[in-house]
Amino acid sequence: MRLSRFFMPILRDTPKEAEIISHQLMLRAGMIRQESAGIYSWLPMGFKVLKRIEQIVREEQDRTGAIEVLMPTIQSADLWRKSGRYDAYGPEMLRIKDRGERDMLYGPTNEEMITDIFRQGVKSYKELPRNLYHIQWKFRDERRPRFGIMRGREFLMKDAYSFDLTAEAGKHSYNKMFVAYLRTFARMGLKAIPMRADTGPIGGDSSHEFLILADTGESAVFFDRDFYDMNWNEFSVDYDNVGDVAKVVGEFTSKYAASDEKHDTTEFEKRVSEAKRMSGRGIEIGHIFFFGDKYTKPLGCVVQGPTGEQIALQSGSYGIGVSRLAAAVIEASHDTAGIIWPMQVAPFQVGLINLKVGDAATDAACADLYAKLEKAGIDVLYDDTDERAGGKFATMDLIGLPFQLVVGPKGLKDGVVEVKTRAGGAKETMTAEAAVSKLVEAVKGKP
Amino acid sequence: MRLSRFFMPILRDTPKEAEIISHQLMLRAGMIRQESAGIYSWLPMGFKVLKRIEQIVREEQDRTGAIEVLMPTIQSADLWRKSGRYDAYGPEMLRIKDRGERDMLYGPTNEEMITDIFRQGVKSYKELPRNLYHIQWKFRDERRPRFGIMRGREFLMKDAYSFDLTAEAGKHSYNKMFVAYLRTFARMGLKAIPMRADTGPIGGDSSHEFLILADTGESAVFFDRDFYDMNWNEFSVDYDNVGDVAKVVGEFTSKYAASDEKHDTTEFEKRVSEAKRMSGRGIEIGHIFFFGDKYTKPLGCVVQGPTGEQIALQSGSYGIGVSRLAAAVIEASHDTAGIIWPMQVAPFQVGLINLKVGDAATDAACADLYAKLEKAGIDVLYDDTDERAGGKFATMDLIGLPFQLVVGPKGLKDGVVEVKTRAGGAKETMTAEAAVSKLVEAVKGKP
Repeated sequence: MRLSRFFMPILRDTPKEAEIISHQLMLRAGMIRQESAGIYSWLPMGFKVLKRIEQIVREEQDRTGAIEVLMPTIQSADLWRKSGRYDAYGPEMLRIKDRGERDMLYGPTNEEMITDIFRQGVKSYKELPRNLYHIQWKFRDERRPRFGIMRGREFLMKDAYSFDLTAEAGKHSYNKMFVAYLRTFARMGLKAIPMRADTGPIGGDSSHEFLILADTGESAVFFDRDFYDMNWNEFSVDYDNVGDVAKVVGEFTSKYAASDEKHDTTEFEKRVSEAKRMSGRGIEIGHIFFFGDKYTKPLGCVVQGPTGEQIALQSGSYGIGVSRLAAAVIEASHDTAGIIWPMQVAPFQVGLINLKVGDAATDAACADLYAKLEKAGIDVLYDDTDERAGGKFATMDLIGLPFQLVVGPKGLKDGVVEVKTRAGGAKETMTAEAAVSKLVEAVKGKP
Repeated sequence: MRLSRFFMPILRDTPKEAEIISHQLMLRAGMIRQESAGIYSWLPMGFKVLKRIEQIVREEQDRTGAIEVLMPTIQSADLWRKSGRYDAYGPEMLRIKDRGERDMLYGPTNEEMITDIFRQGVKSYKELPRNLYHIQWKFRDERRPRFGIMRGREFLMKDAYSFDLTAEAGKHSYNKMFVAYLRTFARMGLKAIPMRADTGPIGGDSSHEFLILADTGESAVFFDRDFYDMNWNEFSVDYDNVGDVAKVVGEFTSKYAASDEKHDTTEFEKRVSEAKRMSGRGIEIGHIFFFGDKYTKPLGCVVQGPTGEQIALQSGSYGIGVSRLAAAVIEASHDTAGIIWPMQVAPFQVGLINLKVGDAATDAACADLYAKLEKAGIDVLYDDTDERAGGKFATMDLIGLPFQLVVGPKGLKDGVVEVKTRAGGAKETMTAEAAVSKLVEAVKGKP
């Protein structure tokens, strides 16, 4: 993408209303724009990041065998009355009357609807297990939306719902999601610590939330330092192997980790040696629940079992805050100059800076590099504007692409260009050819 | 995908509430489920088709240089008051009060919001032209939603918005979208005839709608038979070449085509010879508008021009009914047995039918074919269930995948499998190896 044809409204100053770093940087980098309290537009840079995150989430859900659907944003109140949550939900539910004066609502979650879909579509235990998920906008009318998209009202969530015949089978479905969450967040460069959690208004028997550490997190968290040394990157388990999946879950739940609601000081001190006791604040990016027949029973979601009897299904729900993750990654990865995108979620992988637009040799070298990198499947943002060099460098650092490729007449005279790695700031000069090889290898892996 | 692990709730009977063929077939094929009047869930088969259509729309928008963003579904009433449309819009606008009693609405379209985004982000004529688009759910509270997703209340729309300094440049932006629409629909196997249209509540100087013929269409249409013989598949124009783009538009607007609102019998009879006068009913799948400064003026969307003066921008908006297209393709492509998906929008390209699940040789042959086709990048739905053959054939015909690959013990004894082409129903027997080659070539093109 040529910057001269892109839409990236950079702000030079930090907007006063933004209290946390991710909110500040997303506004400054032209990623989002507030439309109303807690409601945002995703401008091109933000949209690209959102799509990358969504795609990682999707791939890891699909890998477990979960099947994607898409439920609407507007729901009828009827199903919520059946489950008893319509009145219980409180003012966070955005309630709407349509032109026929029917009670509708903007879905804050989808347990009721998916359970009814499953009830209608599946009649026999032979069609189990299943996990259906969707990635759809939700609305929660927070009293005090703040921190940008981190605590917005309209937000993108992945919510999956598992259906099993027995609690034991349901446990495996739960464990699969547990492992998928570790994989999903690790691919974004995040170590999201799973913590025992309250089940809250969703209800149920068992629940974990996944938190990353950040000073602005909403919960106090307490955990074993050993989490840092665990294997976060190689959970290539066979999801059909019940034991393998349970083993990973066992490893990650054997160490102490709890957020304030579930924290037990005595247990913490007993199980974790003083030197390893860590505490801080955490941002929740995922939450999983197993709730048995809490929704299937009132909604009549039963199947015929092996001996002909009608059995209410065992189910769970599994959420990831997709839009929130864009901010969470920034909270975890930035410096004073701006964002530092991990490769997998970067909006572009390389920023190409032309230091002298209008100089024939520089323009030609840039055009050639741009074409070669794009041909290799690399997304390049090519700064072909006539801004001065200092401004271009500052903007590139702010938007945080993993690599910068700097091309100017002086270097070209010596036959070299400069490659800057955003994380750490290391700079190397090399021939244009070597730069292409280096970048292709860094982005796409060794050939 | 193995059917034994998929979620495809097929209906054996035609639901009474479905009046038109696309609605009937989408329900029977387990693509959608109604949640409330005019509000649908997209089940896995439907979701896959929706994503294919969305991706074609996206690719053709991107090709023109349009840039993708994502605006929220819920908007504040404030901007709509500025443009004067808040009161004018009528009961089709879903109006909402949030917990702070603020007037909000579920966006039926986004002229106001995008104009304000552009106003804030662009200050100079040097940053023109631009076209920003998004693909987002909209809500129009139709008095009488019907025909399934064809005339639903919550629907997925692609809406693009162009901004130019002059009306002449704006005309080029309009023409680019015109050509992109022809390309987009042609890729889905649709000949969408562009017709002069009323500008309606969007307003403006110039407008075309794109219609496909279907008996259940909402408008009567009148057009020149010559449209059938035009070149619908090779608009590989250079979008930066103003003349080239205008030439294609000229070709498609030189022939008579109008829907009832704009139809002029005298002109029709003068311009089209009797033998070539066609009439019928049409479904609108796209609509483009050029409205100059209708929104930019009241919303203060101005830039600094070359000589320092402030100039209100010239803009247009360009919609495609993404969810509606899924139904439109079915209206255009089906037979008595079910849907016939064009290759580019098919949820899977091949349906693999195992005629004797449990027979070792048949299972092994199917597993091998499934693996080989998937490895070649083909999406295969593998019917590995224990349903009888007749039921499997009927289901495959109903869901309309382009090819069926039928494998049974009898054929295998003779060393052959059967390949059926859904469109037309031709069947050929050949070796498994030849079947793989044939299918890979048919789906992916010659190597």
